[in-house]
Amino acid sequence: MLTTMDDILERLENTLAELLAETRPATLFKAMRHAVLGGGKRIRPQLCLASAAVVGGRAEDALYPACAIELLHSYTLVHDDLPAMDNDTTRRGKPSVWAAFGEATAILAGDALQALAFQTAARAPRNGEKILAALSEAAVGVVCGQSEELSAPSSQPSTHNPSTFQPFNLSTFPPDTDFIYRHKTADLFIAAAVMGAYAGGGTETDVARLREYALNLGLAFQYEDDLLDGDVGFPPEEAKRRIADHTAAALASLDGLPGDTAFLSALAHRLARRTA
Amino acid sequence: MLTTMDDILERLENTLAELLAETRPATLFKAMRHAVLGGGKRIRPQLCLASAAVVGGRAEDALYPACAIELLHSYTLVHDDLPAMDNDTTRRGKPSVWAAFGEATAILAGDALQALAFQTAARAPRNGEKILAALSEAAVGVVCGQSEELSAPSSQPSTHNPSTFQPFNLSTFPPDTDFIYRHKTADLFIAAAVMGAYAGGGTETDVARLREYALNLGLAFQYEDDLLDGDVGFPPEEAKRRIADHTAAALASLDGLPGDTAFLSALAHRLARRTA
Repeated sequence: MLTTMDDILERLENTLAELLAETRPATLFKAMRHAVLGGGKRIRPQLCLASAAVVGGRAEDALYPACAIELLHSYTLVHDDLPAMDNDTTRRGKPSVWAAFGEATAILAGDALQALAFQTAARAPRNGEKILAALSEAAVGVVCGQSEELSAPSSQPSTHNPSTFQPFNLSTFPPDTDFIYRHKTADLFIAAAVMGAYAGGGTETDVARLREYALNLGLAFQYEDDLLDGDVGFPPEEAKRRIADHTAAALASLDGLPGDTAFLSALAHRLARRTA
Repeated sequence: MLTTMDDILERLENTLAELLAETRPATLFKAMRHAVLGGGKRIRPQLCLASAAVVGGRAEDALYPACAIELLHSYTLVHDDLPAMDNDTTRRGKPSVWAAFGEATAILAGDALQALAFQTAARAPRNGEKILAALSEAAVGVVCGQSEELSAPSSQPSTHNPSTFQPFNLSTFPPDTDFIYRHKTADLFIAAAVMGAYAGGGTETDVARLREYALNLGLAFQYEDDLLDGDVGFPPEEAKRRIADHTAAALASLDGLPGDTAFLSALAHRLARRTA
């Protein structure tokens, strides 16, 4: 399975490069390639490809949906980095798109990446309507999560200082963390898994199991992200407990799937223990 | 036909309002409603609805695609107005979205409107995959047109002065006008007509005729736009000739369609003679 995943991930990289190979307008596509190629852990595509396999399909059936979810994810990063948003000048050790190409091109490159995500998902070999519905639900959801975060107190730069931490108390939670994490992060994981399951020809029961797996995987991923950033809105012990709980729930959701769940199981363990 | 179109356009307004009625995140959806509701001539939705009818379907079959094309069009305006783009503080006699809600919310509102366009088009009652393919092609194309315009000499503020006009000469044309107009403007007209034709159950021959109609309608519309703005890159007489030529080509493309072409014929005449 791992060899197969490596092979298919190489095809994914090649397919992403082909999708972005247009030469006109030159600057736009150069900015899009800068955003997508040569970086990124491809976690969402892995989830998408493995979901197609675990329902009994072939991972390559989900190649275009897997590219689509990475294009959608990349667009959110391009727009997140803009001066009016997070104002980040670097991303993955390179200049962010706006820092390298200017704000106007970064806005347009993000817009085009979202559009290209839909055009790419539409090339799935089966269940196209369900795949596009899943992608569009996530595409709306992710913006809702980002917008809620923008208006929430937790969007302020974190001044994390362990010595001032209060004992764990529900009232110290940022009020909308559940909404933000569900939409900002988990929605893309859910779309990845659901699109993969449909592309692989899974049943609605398979889709429901993978949706539950991906929701919990996404939430664990986001808590881990916050811990790594030192940006968690509540005590680290509580974040660690949540990561463990969501990882356990994700693993439990794999029961009953027809294919080999080893890769998805390992993915959940890997994300719970990541260091970057 | 005109009464029917008025009725269906009222349903369109109600449906757009329903699609944007979400209350969370409050600011995001308020900004999206500001961008879409209470303004706009709804030319692309009219084209979409009439295309469904002219192929023998019912206009209301294209209600969701018609909403989708207006949502997509609206997102392009929201992002166009941003300070890093055209830096427009007003739109349709109201503050532009960024002027009213700030840049971050305007970026996100545009992003969400594009996503919602795809989610809405996915609700078409038939031919969903073809409809979404047409929408995504236009969504990629429109950004390519805008990006090309951004880098073209013609994107400079026009300093139109009739006394300095050179006699008509091909070399005075902005080099990429064809590419820009085709993609920036005509692509959305084409998607509107093609989606409507598929939603109405049209044949591929009907779709091809309506694609040709919409391409010419869109080009005539853009030349008219430039004339009205005093922003045309070549002599007004040449723009007028092109408007007449494209309008004639649009009208000729209606031959052979199974339904009543009166509305689409009148639309072409109306757009060629508009004053705003």
